[in-house]
Amino acid sequence: MNYRGFISFAVLFFLGSSCFAQADGFKPSTTNAPGRQYPQVNVDGRVRSRFTAPDANKVQLDIGGKKYDMVKDAKGVWTGESLAQDVGFHYYQLNVDGVSVPDPGTLYYYGAGRWGSGIEIPATDGEFFALRKVPHGLVGENVYFSKLTDSWRRCFVYTPPDYQKNLKRRYPVLYLQHGSFEDETGWSRQGYANRILDNLIASGKAAPMIIVMDNGYAFKPNAGANSNDVRPESIFEQVMVDEIIPMIDGKFRTIADREHRAIAGLSMGANQTMRIIMNNLDKFSSLGAFSGTSNYPGTDVINTATFLNGKFKDGAAINKKFKVLFLGLGTKEPNPFPGSVGAFKNMLDKQGIKYVFYQSPGTAHEWLTWRRDLEKFAQLIFK
Amino acid sequence: MNYRGFISFAVLFFLGSSCFAQADGFKPSTTNAPGRQYPQVNVDGRVRSRFTAPDANKVQLDIGGKKYDMVKDAKGVWTGESLAQDVGFHYYQLNVDGVSVPDPGTLYYYGAGRWGSGIEIPATDGEFFALRKVPHGLVGENVYFSKLTDSWRRCFVYTPPDYQKNLKRRYPVLYLQHGSFEDETGWSRQGYANRILDNLIASGKAAPMIIVMDNGYAFKPNAGANSNDVRPESIFEQVMVDEIIPMIDGKFRTIADREHRAIAGLSMGANQTMRIIMNNLDKFSSLGAFSGTSNYPGTDVINTATFLNGKFKDGAAINKKFKVLFLGLGTKEPNPFPGSVGAFKNMLDKQGIKYVFYQSPGTAHEWLTWRRDLEKFAQLIFK
Repeated sequence: MNYRGFISFAVLFFLGSSCFAQADGFKPSTTNAPGRQYPQVNVDGRVRSRFTAPDANKVQLDIGGKKYDMVKDAKGVWTGESLAQDVGFHYYQLNVDGVSVPDPGTLYYYGAGRWGSGIEIPATDGEFFALRKVPHGLVGENVYFSKLTDSWRRCFVYTPPDYQKNLKRRYPVLYLQHGSFEDETGWSRQGYANRILDNLIASGKAAPMIIVMDNGYAFKPNAGANSNDVRPESIFEQVMVDEIIPMIDGKFRTIADREHRAIAGLSMGANQTMRIIMNNLDKFSSLGAFSGTSNYPGTDVINTATFLNGKFKDGAAINKKFKVLFLGLGTKEPNPFPGSVGAFKNMLDKQGIKYVFYQSPGTAHEWLTWRRDLEKFAQLIFK
Repeated sequence: MNYRGFISFAVLFFLGSSCFAQADGFKPSTTNAPGRQYPQVNVDGRVRSRFTAPDANKVQLDIGGKKYDMVKDAKGVWTGESLAQDVGFHYYQLNVDGVSVPDPGTLYYYGAGRWGSGIEIPATDGEFFALRKVPHGLVGENVYFSKLTDSWRRCFVYTPPDYQKNLKRRYPVLYLQHGSFEDETGWSRQGYANRILDNLIASGKAAPMIIVMDNGYAFKPNAGANSNDVRPESIFEQVMVDEIIPMIDGKFRTIADREHRAIAGLSMGANQTMRIIMNNLDKFSSLGAFSGTSNYPGTDVINTATFLNGKFKDGAAINKKFKVLFLGLGTKEPNPFPGSVGAFKNMLDKQGIKYVFYQSPGTAHEWLTWRRDLEKFAQLIFK
């Protein structure tokens, strides 16, 4: 808060931001906090963290389900390196004398049920979600009171570059949901949904659209207050249909009909949005199910008589109603996702239901898969 | 990422969010992460943190310039309590075996040069920045490329509730700056600028206005690359005048003249915005200097012949140009702020320059002071 502080800040900032490649190919991660040199990533996808903790006895880098011991030098600086990680975005942490803490070198992301560190292992196709010199839309933080949950809720609303200028125009809307242990910040922070759309719109590959990113957790007031409620019933579908959509149509210049409304989500969000669209085909015409389907975690043959109350029984009717039914999956996703999505695809084939299936090469159950899904899906809808 | 996970998350969530008052008056802080019971604050302003670290040898609560030893129980849970803190918002951290880490119980804020923990010690006047059932504006994240700095920059832009609906209307603009070691996120995260304006506008006490919150750090490309540049020269004024204002006037429905443009900032931001307005009286008509003036850190009598190149020499001319000149200061601010602002006030008095001086009762050099300043200042401008 003073200028002497400012001087040392500026020095730190510039020492920190000189973005030179290391001899061994390690570079500061794109997800680092301002001015931070560590963590770094090399071309193999190894992560190197560095952390000052002179009095600590044991520091570990905890990433990809594995803890790597870090080594302390004479000045108390710990350095550690992971094995090669999959390309894409990974939540991770450090472990200091048994305590999981965020790596202070990174920006923080909400995932795994906490605000903590994340790191990006670059893929070769990063340009599609890069910040490029194209017109940029706005990501608006929108708070609203939900009567159904008796609580304040929040969504982020992407409006395309044109939205602020072309005041006569109305836009289609994509409702886009995060996964479990994540929240409404995911798609614009680690998902880069806004950059993906800015880039697609600039190149004419996607229609300008509004994207609404809300929180998939919604419960009745006092749900769970009774300790017998092991899993309080989600009322997210009701909140989406009765509160979120009317609010968005009231506040933004939307085209408020089913033809101009799509819904998509990842993992838990895919499961949720599939249920929502099948119960509300009067409200949505396209679905993007990224790494998830409503038969999750099942991998058995789907019985269309009972699955989602028979909503997939009449394949011809679904083909008439759906404009786009999109499924996405990374080629390195763990069980049960390949089996679960596979069983769902088999059901669609058997019912003669048209769909697009996109496989993200070399990616696991993480955000690079989902960014690619969005990039493909956004080009198909609202055409 | 799976439903078993979801079940335990939901249980945790509801156990965590049951917001009961403790017997000793401690309650979860309003700045806690979702579902977290700790840290807590009591009516005296004491902070209690709780942190699980079975293998750590020493854990401290580091707040208000003092480290408080925490105590470990048989389960490895550390609990510690601070002495009474001033009301308002405080950055703080935990110290685990000598390492400063964020308290995982809180949301994270950018301040003190890092993303880390913050805590709110409630004051009795909290309603003015509370999330209330009034119409809410949007806070938009706006990225733009700056040629002057050859870098991407970002500002947050508050548009009032009416902005999305009343498409014919144009609005005045307040440019609002953070302090040193802070960034463009400060005013909407810990400053609650949007809530303050939502509440004021709803009660008719302030004119609907756009607020632009940008980053006060701006340097020439490669500034600081030379290690002799101990303090690279700020070009923020130039970025504000030549890039930010034209961008905002181009992208938003502003009234683009000096009568409808105000500028304000806190601490370093007060110093910056005072310089900017005095060099650009053709562009701004009102100034809010919250806990800072451009004679900082000086406390001596100001020589108007030399101060800011003589910009305050002609008091009558300044009275003609300024619509509002507002100074704010907390009654508990440390040196040199009282002396520095005091010397500036004395100069204004001597020059016969009109101003409003607001003293925030019982607050220090922190965000409650600045929220109160904004709440007062916003009622004076654009009338």
